[in-house]
Amino acid sequence: MRMRKKKWTESELTLNTRLIENPREHKGCWATRFGNDNDIHLEIGCGKGGFITASAVRNPDVNFIGLERQSIVLARALRKSTAAGANLLFVREDVEALAEFFEPGEITRLYINFCDPWPNRKKWAKRRLTHVNFLAVYKTLLKTDGDIVFKTDNRELFEFSINQFSLDGWILSEVSLDLHNPGDPENIMTEYEKKFSALGCPIYRLKASVRPPKEGCNEHNDDTQ
Amino acid sequence: MRMRKKKWTESELTLNTRLIENPREHKGCWATRFGNDNDIHLEIGCGKGGFITASAVRNPDVNFIGLERQSIVLARALRKSTAAGANLLFVREDVEALAEFFEPGEITRLYINFCDPWPNRKKWAKRRLTHVNFLAVYKTLLKTDGDIVFKTDNRELFEFSINQFSLDGWILSEVSLDLHNPGDPENIMTEYEKKFSALGCPIYRLKASVRPPKEGCNEHNDDTQ
Repeated sequence: MRMRKKKWTESELTLNTRLIENPREHKGCWATRFGNDNDIHLEIGCGKGGFITASAVRNPDVNFIGLERQSIVLARALRKSTAAGANLLFVREDVEALAEFFEPGEITRLYINFCDPWPNRKKWAKRRLTHVNFLAVYKTLLKTDGDIVFKTDNRELFEFSINQFSLDGWILSEVSLDLHNPGDPENIMTEYEKKFSALGCPIYRLKASVRPPKEGCNEHNDDTQ
Repeated sequence: MRMRKKKWTESELTLNTRLIENPREHKGCWATRFGNDNDIHLEIGCGKGGFITASAVRNPDVNFIGLERQSIVLARALRKSTAAGANLLFVREDVEALAEFFEPGEITRLYINFCDPWPNRKKWAKRRLTHVNFLAVYKTLLKTDGDIVFKTDNRELFEFSINQFSLDGWILSEVSLDLHNPGDPENIMTEYEKKFSALGCPIYRLKASVRPPKEGCNEHNDDTQ
């Protein structure tokens, strides 16, 4: 996503207190920073922040952190986050550094929304955010009952991701191969999702859990299928 | 599939020696019946037999068994099977009885092709051939390095099936959400698949393994993704 710098970009990045300048200082003590023990949901690559801000507004009892490495994009997210309460923070870092500012088990849920599909698969597969190398890191940072919610409009990436999650032993559920048909009232759309869904592109979604869900198989079928 | 009886239906069912009248007598000793120790691949619901006959012709070193409970349909499969060698047999039984004529570990691969999607999910989910209750039976009958290859044109059934396989601990690979785009030269089409693919419907395919594939993660990515 290539964006032009706005006149307010620098001021958002320097003055907006939602942006955590030194996330490594909070490793293992994000609860202290948020002032409560609520679950932490992290979006990897939050872009312009539409999804995470709407999520924070809808779920005041969950703490949200948006991770975004691109400053100009992050400034937009910061500027758009005014509707949210104190349960939303942002970090300007690369996903590669994730383990440097979270302790194992500190995150309850990860969101990966419309990440780069890196289509030249052989060469770039390891750069995909759902490659098993990344999944191994996520697994250590998630609680034992934690999960990942993953959405994409890229068919090949979704196929790849099912393989990778399965190979790494995650339990898949809530799989949808066309999320907006018939639609999920709980779904919060990202900016990208709104755009591509409007063009008629199917949106793929899955939840990957570290452990099997608590309910029995039959309940699972009846309720979520 | 509702079909009319042909004048040759009865003769195929009574005279064609590919049809095993008493499959329970071969439980644990199908190798003896085939006259060799080759792997056994079973298609559950082989219909008119186009897929399994083509598979048997292409793979003479694999033993194939087509399971079909509908006599009139099975008669067509028998009549169409002349191109295959001695590596193709048929059984007229219901999937529910599978464990009555196979010993644990006797099957190397199961094919489930375009089974009934039972769309009223809450009421009929347990009838779907990829429900965890069925998967548990398949798992006992498959070798430890065995697998299931599953194809369908029904999106909801495929979503459901990913959930069920994952919940039951199977390792998914070779996932395709549009098998004929760009196409897999190894794929053998069923009659149903030819018809619906020609209409432009996407065909979904996955392989579910009892254990992870032998190759490493990186090789897996490079070669099959």
